[in-house]
Amino acid sequence: MSKYKSLKEECYEANMELNALGLVIYTFGNVSAVDRDNGVFAIKPSGVPYEKLKPSDMVILDYDNTIVEGDLRPSSDTKTHSYLYKNWEKIGGVAHTHAMYSVSWAQAQRDIPIFGTTHADHLTQDIPCAAPMADDLIEGNYEHNTGIQILDCFSSRNLDYNEVEMVLIGNHGPFAWGKNAAKAVYNTKVLETVAQMAYLTLQINPNAPRLKDSLIKKHYERKHGKNAYYGQ
Amino acid sequence: MSKYKSLKEECYEANMELNALGLVIYTFGNVSAVDRDNGVFAIKPSGVPYEKLKPSDMVILDYDNTIVEGDLRPSSDTKTHSYLYKNWEKIGGVAHTHAMYSVSWAQAQRDIPIFGTTHADHLTQDIPCAAPMADDLIEGNYEHNTGIQILDCFSSRNLDYNEVEMVLIGNHGPFAWGKNAAKAVYNTKVLETVAQMAYLTLQINPNAPRLKDSLIKKHYERKHGKNAYYGQ
Amino acid sequence: MSKYKSLKEECYEANMELNALGLVIYTFGNVSAVDRDNGVFAIKPSGVPYEKLKPSDMVILDYDNTIVEGDLRPSSDTKTHSYLYKNWEKIGGVAHTHAMYSVSWAQAQRDIPIFGTTHADHLTQDIPCAAPMADDLIEGNYEHNTGIQILDCFSSRNLDYNEVEMVLIGNHGPFAWGKNAAKAVYNTKVLETVAQMAYLTLQINPNAPRLKDSLIKKHYERKHGKNAYYGQ
Amino acid sequence: MSKYKSLKEECYEANMELNALGLVIYTFGNVSAVDRDNGVFAIKPSGVPYEKLKPSDMVILDYDNTIVEGDLRPSSDTKTHSYLYKNWEKIGGVAHTHAMYSVSWAQAQRDIPIFGTTHADHLTQDIPCAAPMADDLIEGNYEHNTGIQILDCFSSRNLDYNEVEMVLIGNHGPFAWGKNAAKAVYNTKVLETVAQMAYLTLQINPNAPRLKDSLIKKHYERKHGKNAYYGQ
Repeated sequence: MSKYKSLKEECYEANMELNALGLVIYTFGNVSAVDRDNGVFAIKPSGVPYEKLKPSDMVILDYDNTIVEGDLRPSSDTKTHSYLYKNWEKIGGVAHTHAMYSVSWAQAQRDIPIFGTTHADHLTQDIPCAAPMADDLIEGNYEHNTGIQILDCFSSRNLDYNEVEMVLIGNHGPFAWGKNAAKAVYNTKVLETVAQMAYLTLQINPNAPRLKDSLIKKHYERKHGKNAYYGQ
Repeated sequence: MSKYKSLKEECYEANMELNALGLVIYTFGNVSAVDRDNGVFAIKPSGVPYEKLKPSDMVILDYDNTIVEGDLRPSSDTKTHSYLYKNWEKIGGVAHTHAMYSVSWAQAQRDIPIFGTTHADHLTQDIPCAAPMADDLIEGNYEHNTGIQILDCFSSRNLDYNEVEMVLIGNHGPFAWGKNAAKAVYNTKVLETVAQMAYLTLQINPNAPRLKDSLIKKHYERKHGKNAYYGQ
Repeated sequence: MSKYKSLKEECYEANMELNALGLVIYTFGNVSAVDRDNGVFAIKPSGVPYEKLKPSDMVILDYDNTIVEGDLRPSSDTKTHSYLYKNWEKIGGVAHTHAMYSVSWAQAQRDIPIFGTTHADHLTQDIPCAAPMADDLIEGNYEHNTGIQILDCFSSRNLDYNEVEMVLIGNHGPFAWGKNAAKAVYNTKVLETVAQMAYLTLQINPNAPRLKDSLIKKHYERKHGKNAYYGQ
Repeated sequence: MSKYKSLKEECYEANMELNALGLVIYTFGNVSAVDRDNGVFAIKPSGVPYEKLKPSDMVILDYDNTIVEGDLRPSSDTKTHSYLYKNWEKIGGVAHTHAMYSVSWAQAQRDIPIFGTTHADHLTQDIPCAAPMADDLIEGNYEHNTGIQILDCFSSRNLDYNEVEMVLIGNHGPFAWGKNAAKAVYNTKVLETVAQMAYLTLQINPNAPRLKDSLIKKHYERKHGKNAYYGQ
C-alpha cells in the first residue's frame, strides 16, 4: 500500500468537491495537497474527467516536480503549485479553476474591490489581479513563471499570503490556497461568490464606495483576530 | 427532554430551509425562533455546516443574550436577533443571510425601489437600506448596535415592522423577520427575488418608474387588507 | 366521480410543470384549462403550495366566475382567465407567473424586441407590454379589467391572439395561452427564455438591430406555415 | 439489425448529453454523427422531446439529404449538417443549439473576442459571427444556404475549420463540430462558457484588451501543439 494513501485521498476529495460546488466544467481545474513531513504533494492528473477519477490516480511529486509515485501525467499547472509550496511554507493546499466570475474579473484585469462584509469576513484587502507576464516569461517555463508572477505581485503590494489566500492571474483565472486542500477549495468558492457580488454591486451602483476601515477590521477580526468569536 | 424541543425543531427546520432555497453557501446565514411565553429564543450555533446540524444543536438564550440551554456557541449575530425580539414584540422569527442579490444592493448602498406587483404583494414601501454605522458603534458592541441601527432606520423613515418585514444593512446584507421562523425565511426568499428583479429592471430600463400608488395599494390589500381574497 | 376529472388532471399537470420548469417560487403562478363543450374551466386554488396540491383541489368555474365544483377558493387571478376564455374562443389554456426575466421587462415597461430566430420560431411580432391601467380600473374590478387591458392592447396594435400567444402586463408580469394548458406553460417558458436572451443581447450590443423580415417569415413559416416542415 | 446501430447510438448519446449539459430547452437543438466509410450521417428527428428519444429514432441520410434509414422526419436543420459534412471532410460530428449566451452574442451580431486562456485553450481566433444572409438566400434553400454562409465566413476570414470548431450565425445561434459527435457537444459547451465569460468581462471592463499573442500561442500549443503536454 502506498505511504501516500491518505494524502491522495485528501487530494481526491478536494478535487471532487470542486466539481460538486459547480466551480469547474469538464477538467478545467485542479487541486493539490501537500505532505510537509515527506516534502511531497499530490495533484490531480491532467485532463482526467471527474466521473472517472479515483484516489489512486493522484500523482505524487516533490517540490522540484519529480514524480515520486503515479502512472499518470500530472496537471499541466503542476509547476505553479510546486512553486507556491516551495516558497510559502505554511500552505497545505492549492486550487486552480476557470470559475465564471473569477475568470471574468481576471479577463477584465481588475482587482476585486472590497465592497462588503462577505469579503471582509475572509480578507482585509482587495483581491489582487496580477498583471499578465512579459512575453519571454510566457514563452519560457510558463507554469513555473506563473508562480513567480504570483509572488512578485504579493511582494510588490506588500500582501501576506497567510491573510490573502487568493489571487487572480490577469487573463487567466484564480488560484487559491489554505492550510489544506479543503480550505483551498473553500477559498475558491468564496472568491467566486465575492467576485459575483462585486460585479453586481458595480452594475447597481458604479460609484459604490469601498468598505470603510472600521467594518473591514471588525469583520475580519471577529473571525480571525485573537478575540475571534465566530465558529466553535 | 428539553422543554424547548419544539422551539429547537422549528428553528432547525427554518435553518435547513434557508439552505434548501439556495440562500446560503457554507455557514453564511442564521435563523432564530422565539418562544414569547418563556421569554427565550432558539438560534443556530455559529459556524456549524448545515449537513451536520441537528435540532438539539440549537442554542436557547433569553433576550439579554444569556444562554439558557445548549453546549455550542450561538451565532455571532445573536445580539442583533435578541435586540429585535426585545423591541419588536410581535415578531416570532428572524433570518440573516449573505444572499447574492440582496447583498449586492446592500453593497451598492441603495434602497430597492418598488417596481412591480411582486414587491407590492408583500410591502408598500421601497425596501430600506440602512446606512453603515458610525465607527465608534462598529468598534463597540457591534451586533447589538446593528439592531439599534435597524430600529433607527425604521424610526427615521416612519416604517412599520409589521408591514416592512425586511431590511438591508449597508455593506453587509439582509435581515428579515415575521410571525415565525418559517415566515422570516419566506421573506428572505422574497427579498432576494425582488432584489434580482429590480436589478434586471434597471438594466433593461435605467429610467423605470416606481409602481404607481393605486397598484401598490391594490396588490398589498388583496393579500393583506381586511377584504383580502388571496389564499385559503 | 367528478365529470371534470380529466380536466382537473390536465390543469394539475400543467401547474406542476410550471413549478418543475423553475418558472415560479412558492405560489406565484397559476394555470387553467378549459372544457369548451361544458363551458367551464379548471384553475389552481389560491395560495396552495405545489407540494401539497392534488388534482382534486382544482376549482371548476364557468366563464362568469361562478364556482361549479370545488371546496377551495380559486386563484385570485381567476377573473382574468375567465375573461380571456369568454372572448378568445380558440384558446384552451392560460398561464400566469412572476417569472424573473419576463417580470423584469414588464417592470421596465418595454416590449421585447424580436432579435432572433428563437423568437421568430414562435411569433412574428415584438412581445407586447400592455400599459398599466388607469387608476379607476385598478380600484374597480381589477382582475376582470386586466383581461380588458390585454384585449385592448391586442386590438389597438392589431395583434392576433392565435399567433401572439403571450403578453406582458406593465409592472406586473406575463400571461400566456395556447390550445391547451400544457401549451400555455410551454409559451410561458419560451417567453421567459426569449426575455433573457433579449436582455443579454442589449447588454452586449445596445444597438442590436431587430431581426429582418425575411428571417422572421422564414422561421415562423417553417414551424407554423402551411408548408411547415418542423416536427413529426 | 441495422448496420447503423452504433452510429445511431453515438448520435443518440450526444443529443442526450446536450440536454444534460443544460444547452437546450424542449427540442431547441440537434446533433449529428457521420460514418465516413458508408457516406452517411445520423441526426436527431425533428421536434421529438429528449425524454421520449430512443437510439432507433435517429435518422440516417446521405450527404445529399436522401433518407437511407428511419421512419421519422429528420431535424429541420439537416441540410446545414450535410453541407458541412460534404465540404469539410475531416469532421465527424455537428451540433446546433439555441444556448443562452451563444444566441445572445449572435443576436448582438458580434464576434466573441478572445479575452482569456479558457478561450485560447481551444482556439486562437475570435469566435466568428457570420452575417445574416441576403434575403433571396433566406427565401430559397435556407438550411443549405446556412451551410454556404458558414463556409463563406471561414473562407473570407481565412479560418481553418480544424482549429476553429465553432461559429455563430448572426441572429440565429451557434453551430459547433469536431472529430465526432461528442466533441461537437463539448465544443458547444465550451462556446457557451466562453460566451458568458466574454459578456461578463465587458460588463466589468468595457475596454478589456484582447489576449496578447504570446499567451494565445502558449495556451493553444500546450493543448494542441506538437509538444502538447495536456491530458494523458
